Amino acid sequence: MGRQIDIDRLASQIIAGSRGALARGITLAESTRPRDALLSDELLQKLPAKPNSIRVGISGVPGAGKSTFIETLGMYLVERGHRVAVLAIDPSSERSGGSVLGDKTRMQRLSIDERAYVRPSPTRGTLGGVSARTFEAIRVCEGAGYDIVLVETVGVGQSETVVADLVDVTMALFVAGAGDSLQGIKRGILEVIDLLVINKADSVGEERALQAAAEYRGALRLMRGQAIPVMAMSGLTGSGVAEVWQTTLERHGSASVAEVRALQRTRHFERALVEELSALARETEKHAEMTTSVTAGTLSPRAAARALRDQLVAST
Amino acid sequence: MGRQIDIDRLASQIIAGSRGALARGITLAESTRPRDALLSDELLQKLPAKPNSIRVGISGVPGAGKSTFIETLGMYLVERGHRVAVLAIDPSSERSGGSVLGDKTRMQRLSIDERAYVRPSPTRGTLGGVSARTFEAIRVCEGAGYDIVLVETVGVGQSETVVADLVDVTMALFVAGAGDSLQGIKRGILEVIDLLVINKADSVGEERALQAAAEYRGALRLMRGQAIPVMAMSGLTGSGVAEVWQTTLERHGSASVAEVRALQRTRHFERALVEELSALARETEKHAEMTTSVTAGTLSPRAAARALRDQLVAST
Repeated sequence: MGRQIDIDRLASQIIAGSRGALARGITLAESTRPRDALLSDELLQKLPAKPNSIRVGISGVPGAGKSTFIETLGMYLVERGHRVAVLAIDPSSERSGGSVLGDKTRMQRLSIDERAYVRPSPTRGTLGGVSARTFEAIRVCEGAGYDIVLVETVGVGQSETVVADLVDVTMALFVAGAGDSLQGIKRGILEVIDLLVINKADSVGEERALQAAAEYRGALRLMRGQAIPVMAMSGLTGSGVAEVWQTTLERHGSASVAEVRALQRTRHFERALVEELSALARETEKHAEMTTSVTAGTLSPRAAARALRDQLVAST
Repeated sequence: MGRQIDIDRLASQIIAGSRGALARGITLAESTRPRDALLSDELLQKLPAKPNSIRVGISGVPGAGKSTFIETLGMYLVERGHRVAVLAIDPSSERSGGSVLGDKTRMQRLSIDERAYVRPSPTRGTLGGVSARTFEAIRVCEGAGYDIVLVETVGVGQSETVVADLVDVTMALFVAGAGDSLQGIKRGILEVIDLLVINKADSVGEERALQAAAEYRGALRLMRGQAIPVMAMSGLTGSGVAEVWQTTLERHGSASVAEVRALQRTRHFERALVEELSALARETEKHAEMTTSVTAGTLSPRAAARALRDQLVAST
């Protein structure tokens, strides 16, 4: 954002339904620049809050069919009168080099539908950063009148559970018939999901898909100590999408969304705090000095951390 | 540590081979108290550094047979003239409630052998904390004359890769014949290991164990773009343990251990820094105020983080 932004005007345009303004608002929320963060705050204060929106997280390894699933679910929802926004995050990009997606054409029908908005590229970055910024981007979409926000996790890594702090309901997509080792199944995501979807049920036949669903249902019951819904569907044919959405709504209704979101805000605060303080520390000259001593082994990591902390707090 | 500690005396006792002193030194390193951290630094400065030690990380879900494997490997090593220390960390205890182990009797022969030291309970705590503290505990063991330190990861969670920042060589233990979904296989650990061990090969027969090893070898080659050694063995009968250790030594020799350890120290510094700064922020009155506003939704998470950062740096 190189030029002056009129936040009042941007807010009005977003509320009036301008897709260009919405894109600029999300970019502002997703920006890592300190000045943009202030502007994003100002913008959010001018956009209406939507406590009745439905925020859904969708996880799954590359190849699980997330894009096709989201296209099918999104079309199903807009045809029933909803307005649907799709955001993507890539919390793992730091390590893995990120996703290969970020292409609007991957959801051909949904991305050109007037009742939907598909954000083309995933937000990347550090674990704390990506979540706090996406949390604000969701609010921008809601301010623009989208009552359902789908947040897709792309990329692979250890931080897929970050999506659970962004949304009201979290689901994971597995592929019917694929070996678990190929799916890169992480216990972490299984610990937080509200709903497991066995996708591509069409490719293995109904019977095998139902059998896989039963097996996962048993495994989840063991792991979580409670029943977690597991459903078979086909993103390609749309078979099962109504049941998936019905179950999503039931899970959404079973929790106090207001309380969940309040707790999420405090977690984002803690993460953003860590990030701000780390950035501050890294900017000091002493940080470079300390790193040299720690690397050389003449100063212990924890002693260096304490010394830098003391210097930082005392330096102003 | 309620009373005054004579660090000079403790260091001498540790060097002289006192197991009680070693236990006290590790407790000091693992302590989260600020005063103990200073004492631990002082102790480390008085203990000899051992650049030629071999640090091995051993990961695997509960049930993979880690204890039996470590007992077998440990006995193999002490019988060949080594002194072996076994530490355990539980980086996941914050979320999962931790391990069910921590019992010395789980390694019956090794724990009473004079040439070995088995730390009874795993170090717990936050991701950053557990690693920086265990890093110091390893050095205490080396100062006591143990030339091989085995670091076992217990518990389940998302942070098993933390072990890779503690050791020179990382291995994961899988169970021959068990379904992958039961093993809670995490891509994260597969991305960092130097060696994969298919344990309990005795329970499925040699042929099936070798077949499983071949499959994992192929999967790892795809995932990592290079050959990662995969070996079948039996912790129970000891079959294959010599080959596992030979491969561990080869991996240890293939990297510059001094460089790896220097890089690890800087990572522990960064993590410890984040932890120190967060602790400092949480102690302020303003933190509680901000949390209330963020929870109520009257202040955005990122705005609160910035405000608290500014107050913290300006307050002294």
